[in-house]
Amino acid sequence: MISATCVAPVNIALIKYWGKRNEDLILPVNDSISMTLNTNEMCAKTTISASEKFERNRMWLNGDEVDFEENVRLMRCLKGVQNLVLANGISKVPLSWKLHIASRNNFPTAAGLASSAAGYACLVFTLARLYGLPHNEELTTIARQGSGSACRSLYGGFVHWHRGVLENGSDSVAVPVVPAQHWPNMHVLILVVNDARKKTSSTLGMQRAVTTSTLLQQRVTDVVPHRTKKLIDAINTRNFTEFAEITMRESNQFHAIALDTFPPCIYMNDVSHAIVNFVHSYNEAAGTILTAYTFDAGPNACLYVLEEHVPKLLASINEAFPNDIAQSVEYLQGIPMTTPSPVSGNDQGSGDSSKKCTNENVKINHSTIDTYPKNLLKYIIHTKIGDGPRQMTDEDSLLSDGLPIAN
Amino acid sequence: MISATCVAPVNIALIKYWGKRNEDLILPVNDSISMTLNTNEMCAKTTISASEKFERNRMWLNGDEVDFEENVRLMRCLKGVQNLVLANGISKVPLSWKLHIASRNNFPTAAGLASSAAGYACLVFTLARLYGLPHNEELTTIARQGSGSACRSLYGGFVHWHRGVLENGSDSVAVPVVPAQHWPNMHVLILVVNDARKKTSSTLGMQRAVTTSTLLQQRVTDVVPHRTKKLIDAINTRNFTEFAEITMRESNQFHAIALDTFPPCIYMNDVSHAIVNFVHSYNEAAGTILTAYTFDAGPNACLYVLEEHVPKLLASINEAFPNDIAQSVEYLQGIPMTTPSPVSGNDQGSGDSSKKCTNENVKINHSTIDTYPKNLLKYIIHTKIGDGPRQMTDEDSLLSDGLPIAN
Repeated sequence: MISATCVAPVNIALIKYWGKRNEDLILPVNDSISMTLNTNEMCAKTTISASEKFERNRMWLNGDEVDFEENVRLMRCLKGVQNLVLANGISKVPLSWKLHIASRNNFPTAAGLASSAAGYACLVFTLARLYGLPHNEELTTIARQGSGSACRSLYGGFVHWHRGVLENGSDSVAVPVVPAQHWPNMHVLILVVNDARKKTSSTLGMQRAVTTSTLLQQRVTDVVPHRTKKLIDAINTRNFTEFAEITMRESNQFHAIALDTFPPCIYMNDVSHAIVNFVHSYNEAAGTILTAYTFDAGPNACLYVLEEHVPKLLASINEAFPNDIAQSVEYLQGIPMTTPSPVSGNDQGSGDSSKKCTNENVKINHSTIDTYPKNLLKYIIHTKIGDGPRQMTDEDSLLSDGLPIAN
Repeated sequence: MISATCVAPVNIALIKYWGKRNEDLILPVNDSISMTLNTNEMCAKTTISASEKFERNRMWLNGDEVDFEENVRLMRCLKGVQNLVLANGISKVPLSWKLHIASRNNFPTAAGLASSAAGYACLVFTLARLYGLPHNEELTTIARQGSGSACRSLYGGFVHWHRGVLENGSDSVAVPVVPAQHWPNMHVLILVVNDARKKTSSTLGMQRAVTTSTLLQQRVTDVVPHRTKKLIDAINTRNFTEFAEITMRESNQFHAIALDTFPPCIYMNDVSHAIVNFVHSYNEAAGTILTAYTFDAGPNACLYVLEEHVPKLLASINEAFPNDIAQSVEYLQGIPMTTPSPVSGNDQGSGDSSKKCTNENVKINHSTIDTYPKNLLKYIIHTKIGDGPRQMTDEDSLLSDGLPIAN
């Protein structure tokens, strides 16, 4: 029996993926750009064992056995990797051996983060390790066919998923923009919001947007290409102000398109909009843009903020969104809050020195920031930019003799 | 002393006005279409007295004296009408006589309806009556300069405000599409929603949309011209299904543009979206489109529904949005609920007989319609399509000897 265990990260889109030009191959109508999150706080973990003794392919997701051969997307990823193995000519494992796969997410589903992206990226990456394939662009086209945004979770730092133009999708690949080390003080606060509403699934919401929104074409043709270029510039020059504005405008436009869909798709709620309002007031009170929001197909906010500004942003969040459990360990999860390491003498986070905003001593005047009712937030996850997937040791295996280890 | 007293209606936009191409002249970036509401339930009422004994122009709004000469929009309307009088050559009142103006809205501000539209329409119409001017398109260009949508309140039924192309705005006029009598069973329920948030004013929201939304141009150039034509067809043929779909899509797109504005403008809240969701579920349960929503720059819903379908829609609203005061007189205001007059043997409300939806006996299966928490709605106003402004008798005067009558 041969096994491989790997972890893969979650990614958060800055330029949003919304709408497919090919449903089967999962080809998007526009480019997207994401930031990969550190696997310490959130990741998918997958162990795949291959053995000539296994009678059939089996899979366990978060401990529960799930369909394997009937799962079209899963099978497409498996076949995709196996075809690469055949083309490659050599394999560490005979392709005829059946597989046992165990996968877990270490983050709560309630966080509303696209667990399928990390999951499919981890599956494809682990298959590649198992069979001894190199990590290359072709793997991203396979992960993409599991879940579109999974292709972006195959790299760390900032990642660019190209729309591509070919019918077969072979040029719809994800490529790294810069690694995590380029902008190491880029942190993220995920504000998890209470929400009970039924929401339209992303797959359905995208389909409906493509067929009914009369604004989507303008976004695809004109807005996204322009913003993609500007965002890559902002990332390359570590221009937080520019980065933040593009990110917020993109989030708003994605939700505008969802609203222009018929019937409309609503993912943000009143609390989400309160957070948007808070961010604009906070930046205004600071006299400079210190944080930016983005929302995916759910109500939770993802706030980008440089490490040195995390303490005062968290203090303001706690003031604006008072919470009975604010001091508890469950409320602020992830990176522990300590005095931030001083970013001495450099200008990380501000490519344009005229727009410097790394001064940790910016004072926030709270008189212009609204205070909202108690307990609107469920909890906060503090994380940061991170690397791509990586292989773990056998000690990390989720399978023992081909069967899941009890959690 | 010579006096005139008139009432003018509220209008609700179906094709939305959002964005000016000229701020001073109030010239819109796109055409809009509205329906005029019956003055029985809601109207502005204005009395203007002119006397050679008045020392200065004075004005009272809802009983409180307000600036007159400093009010730029008010003065622009007065000068506009007086210029028409000069061009006309005859006047019932010397232009040198000072004016006393009293104006009232008979509907609560909480209804979130554009009181300025009815107010400026009433002002311009009453001035025209006072000076003895005919009612014509030129008056709409003057009312437009008080408040853009005021031009649409100068006619009854359905009204088309043309964007116009001339720099001086003389072709940006409102014209009737059809009178109220064309579709007399067109009723409206205004669902007034509790809301405490601060909102961006329409004027500011429009300015910001024009300068920051990257989707507005697509709407202005492609979407609105197409929808305007289709809506006029639907009105002419009394095709409720088509009318409803365009109306709902338009409402959604207007709010999408507001969201695509930076910083975003949010006018709908969770309750508004619950109403949207209710309407789609209700129509689906009915198997045909029986009602349509539209939202202006606020959270309140305006539901269009044919008279014969009002009772069952109200019953469903009360089931989906239970309210402790549902049985009280304050909760359901406006047209009293009686058994609706049967619309025997005609097909009013359905131009396309294959899409007939006038059957009063459509059964609504409530099992697929969500029930929301109690008391989300403040109250409901039941009104219908109505005529344009009209002159009242002296008995209706709001002024006595040039001073406001106590309310």
